[in-house]
Amino acid sequence: MSVEELLRELAPVGRVRGGGYYRQPFTAAESELRAWFAEAARARRLVLEADIFGNLMAWWPVDSGPASADRPGVLTGSHLDSVLDGGAYDGPLGVVSAFAALDLLRERGFAPARPLGVAAFVEEEGSRFGLACLGSRLATGAVGWARARELRDADGVFLPDAMESAGLHPEEPTTSPEQIGAELRARLACYVELHVEQGRDLVHRDAAVGLGSGIWPHGRYRFEFAGEANHAGTTRMEDRHDPMLTYAMTALAANKQARLVGARATFGRIEVTPNGTNAVPSRVTGWLDARAADADALARLVAGVERQARERADRDGTAMTVTPESVSGEVAFDAELAARIGTGRDWPLIPTAAGHDAGILSGAGIPSAMLFVRNPTGVSHSPAEHAELADCQLGVQALADTLERLAS
Amino acid sequence: MSVEELLRELAPVGRVRGGGYYRQPFTAAESELRAWFAEAARARRLVLEADIFGNLMAWWPVDSGPASADRPGVLTGSHLDSVLDGGAYDGPLGVVSAFAALDLLRERGFAPARPLGVAAFVEEEGSRFGLACLGSRLATGAVGWARARELRDADGVFLPDAMESAGLHPEEPTTSPEQIGAELRARLACYVELHVEQGRDLVHRDAAVGLGSGIWPHGRYRFEFAGEANHAGTTRMEDRHDPMLTYAMTALAANKQARLVGARATFGRIEVTPNGTNAVPSRVTGWLDARAADADALARLVAGVERQARERADRDGTAMTVTPESVSGEVAFDAELAARIGTGRDWPLIPTAAGHDAGILSGAGIPSAMLFVRNPTGVSHSPAEHAELADCQLGVQALADTLERLAS
Repeated sequence: MSVEELLRELAPVGRVRGGGYYRQPFTAAESELRAWFAEAARARRLVLEADIFGNLMAWWPVDSGPASADRPGVLTGSHLDSVLDGGAYDGPLGVVSAFAALDLLRERGFAPARPLGVAAFVEEEGSRFGLACLGSRLATGAVGWARARELRDADGVFLPDAMESAGLHPEEPTTSPEQIGAELRARLACYVELHVEQGRDLVHRDAAVGLGSGIWPHGRYRFEFAGEANHAGTTRMEDRHDPMLTYAMTALAANKQARLVGARATFGRIEVTPNGTNAVPSRVTGWLDARAADADALARLVAGVERQARERADRDGTAMTVTPESVSGEVAFDAELAARIGTGRDWPLIPTAAGHDAGILSGAGIPSAMLFVRNPTGVSHSPAEHAELADCQLGVQALADTLERLAS
Repeated sequence: MSVEELLRELAPVGRVRGGGYYRQPFTAAESELRAWFAEAARARRLVLEADIFGNLMAWWPVDSGPASADRPGVLTGSHLDSVLDGGAYDGPLGVVSAFAALDLLRERGFAPARPLGVAAFVEEEGSRFGLACLGSRLATGAVGWARARELRDADGVFLPDAMESAGLHPEEPTTSPEQIGAELRARLACYVELHVEQGRDLVHRDAAVGLGSGIWPHGRYRFEFAGEANHAGTTRMEDRHDPMLTYAMTALAANKQARLVGARATFGRIEVTPNGTNAVPSRVTGWLDARAADADALARLVAGVERQARERADRDGTAMTVTPESVSGEVAFDAELAARIGTGRDWPLIPTAAGHDAGILSGAGIPSAMLFVRNPTGVSHSPAEHAELADCQLGVQALADTLERLAS
């Protein structure tokens, strides 16, 4: 099938009025996507695998078998979940392009020497349980089930209960996270993820497709500001300990610091207690998303924001704590793999400031690479996210060419 | 019964771990408070009235009748609902003190010449439907049912549906808001509301009880900031239109403006779309609660905040709209009534920056007065809100003396 047809199949799933997508893991919309994935595998006579964490793989078998330690496979794919009010491409483009590339290879009469797999990793965005790339972290043993099962969504629902309610039956792993990671590493020769670009590097380079060089280090840090609840009308300004002010100053400081050093810092999520119009809040929690070109720059950026926040907290008479929720080190994709993929191609090498499952697999010692498809506006994590169909088709060809090279 | 016993009866209702109260209208907690009110009326052989809006009155009848146009009554009371995570006194102290004052008057053998009523007005805090003093506004015709029935809570539940779910059966009024107000005005000689103080004027004046002079004008203004959703990692700071920054600057500006002119300005409530850690928000809505000593000062304060917000919105490339949700003019309580109540007493005359049902009844032409009970810390709209029992007892005596004077 063409990438156009495949994208059209997914278009209505989890879309709200206004055009944005809500495809949080273990919701009705995501269950529909999982069913779609299983059907796409079945229609192509692929061997479907679901691990105990909810990740899906569909294998084009070799000698009737999927990837194994004796016959390591080439895996491609991405994720199907979205951020809250996200776009149609971030994640799904990599999955539909994978299926379309397999179709194209079959049309070409290609007979793979290695099993070729399509993956859909769970909760890549971390939009429900707060930990990005959760599925690939669990699959590689980077995060253990003992930690994951304690994760809760904004309504207080634990991850295992959310899985149950989606008809999945999470089991306690019988092996350690290290063993789980080692088994996946043994089964995979490499991983290639195709993704819509989330900036405009390819626009500036006038290229439809690019090859990833690496991922900026990035992290999520929870800033909790505690003050004193009080009446918004009768409490003199001088007598207040208002954590909203400390938060506001911190959000502005983060923006300024990131601008100064060419990094990224965002406060896009906030929770206020009690969040009443006529009450000075007792507590404000904001989440800082920070990214920079290297680990030192990231540490300096976060430390700078925290220092300014503390200065303001002292003035406001509020208390603050900062908790790193997830910090991902810099990823440099496997140079040898990139050379094999890129030799003879005119795909520019570009870095990304966004986290990806390919970064997690790379960190687990699985040679990984990324292909990016041009995004005309660079807008992502938004209903306005877009890629031209012609570019998506070039992406499928690039992915098919890559898989042919790696699985020959 | 003593005020101590009455407060103890209410203490557990709607209290959460941490000690705060959630007594939003038409919730289980508030239904329990309504049932308590009905039982308190029954035990005292008072005539219970519930209007179609959910407001409650309990009358000590004269010649077997409650207040009427032929026999205008003296009404006292307050409200039973709380802000989100509020305290035990704001509202309930006025209701329990009313019942305790009636008990004290009966002990004294007092025979009222006018009906004496205890009122509990609905949704005084506006914590569920956003419009403060909703019950008294409806009862006085200041707000009509046509507007009220369109009000929705944060979950999108319409007011009439919330009432239905609490077992109330809202009816369309058969008369106009003006007629509804005129009927209440005809039935009431005056209204006296006792309330815990929400500042420290009485502490500074070393008085347990004070008499209200008036209420500062105040309002709620919804500031909506619209930007462009985008990826928090890949979008350069220079390319963003981040409404969180415009909001943050506005919250700081409001604080500064209010400080400079001795007024009050608070952003205690915020809603962010999509509120995701790794997404630049598309929309941030903040509610400004503003209060000042007179209407001109309030208008200048709000205009000043709005001007600074617009300047920042221009810099951020965001759009903004400001919508006044409710604005209450200055209230000067009836001077003649205050003189009748205060003559020969040592109750200092103090203003308040908090809105009250007494302000709404006053605005509707019903002579109204307020008694305040000392609050040692001044903290209010918080679980830490407090009044000493001895002061509460002095409050009940003051209220009983006042009612005796007014109903003789």
